[in-house]
Amino acid sequence: MVTPATGEASMPLINISLRHGTAPEYRKAIADGVHQAMVDALKITTDDRFELIHEYPPENMLHDPVFFGVERSDRSLFIQIFINVRPLEQKQDLYHRIVENLSEDPGVGRQDIFIGVVEVAPENWWAYARA
Amino acid sequence: MVTPATGEASMPLINISLRHGTAPEYRKAIADGVHQAMVDALKITTDDRFELIHEYPPENMLHDPVFFGVERSDRSLFIQIFINVRPLEQKQDLYHRIVENLSEDPGVGRQDIFIGVVEVAPENWWAYARA
Amino acid sequence: MVTPATGEASMPLINISLRHGTAPEYRKAIADGVHQAMVDALKITTDDRFELIHEYPPENMLHDPVFFGVERSDRSLFIQIFINVRPLEQKQDLYHRIVENLSEDPGVGRQDIFIGVVEVAPENWWAYARA
Repeated sequence: MVTPATGEASMPLINISLRHGTAPEYRKAIADGVHQAMVDALKITTDDRFELIHEYPPENMLHDPVFFGVERSDRSLFIQIFINVRPLEQKQDLYHRIVENLSEDPGVGRQDIFIGVVEVAPENWWAYARA
Repeated sequence: MVTPATGEASMPLINISLRHGTAPEYRKAIADGVHQAMVDALKITTDDRFELIHEYPPENMLHDPVFFGVERSDRSLFIQIFINVRPLEQKQDLYHRIVENLSEDPGVGRQDIFIGVVEVAPENWWAYARA
Repeated sequence: MVTPATGEASMPLINISLRHGTAPEYRKAIADGVHQAMVDALKITTDDRFELIHEYPPENMLHDPVFFGVERSDRSLFIQIFINVRPLEQKQDLYHRIVENLSEDPGVGRQDIFIGVVEVAPENWWAYARA
């Protein structure tokens, strides 16, 4: 019996992209900080976590060194979040919390954080035992 | 002459994410099983196939060992599917078939399969000779 | 103070997928050509650029050797673009320009180019100093 995905659980998928050359602890702190922001802003459960970390050689991660008039460094992160449709206030709270959390640990400057959200319907997720 | 993307073809893009340490045959069986489910559930043609397999060191693929009260293993898969908008029944049939196919070959437990779908308009795809 | 993402800037995210075995200059020409097409078709600023290049061993990038009756080679590219919602004409212009640009430099055949677009709301992006 396969349980179809019709429930309320968020089951987000998160892609975290950064350049090669960081320690596993550094990457874990980023993933933890993003996940905690998801839990706090979107009220998902702590086990509702799927994060993929992508590491790139410098020539495979391209952005402008200055964007919106602000210098961006080689430590920049692109965080892409696939979630169920959420109200604007929750998304803004999520952005705020991600930036605050990563600023504290592992110490990523806010100018180096880029976030993109893609929203889908709850019926677009499947996991076993999702009700 | 560039042919714009206005046709009915689905042209799905599929990201299959798993941890390092599997054989090419194992990954091919997964890709084949997902593709066959796409063909059977969505009635796309067999040549309408674009699959990318992403392999991660363990520390770069994070999820909870227990989710919805079910234990998930290190062999877990995240399958992300970008397709044209589809009715609910087709998506549920797709989930069911993916789980059945991968359970048979290469033998992935249903508790280790996670699926996310992102739907877009047909005009959002381009390939040469797409009519 | 975190500035929420409410402005008009596009802040696209682009995934360029291809097989291992190309020179950095080849990949840069692809990324440059896609970015120039974005600037020309969507009227974004030249610093509005976020591109990730994903390289795959052959067995991890699967598509049919013949699609829509056209032979596709091992040099094929899948270009996935996350942008704000855009009118059809802009997207068609974008496809056309990408194909033209990559055909000129680095010389990718149009039969080897596949494009997928995912559109989101402007509120779904965050970057520091985005107004």
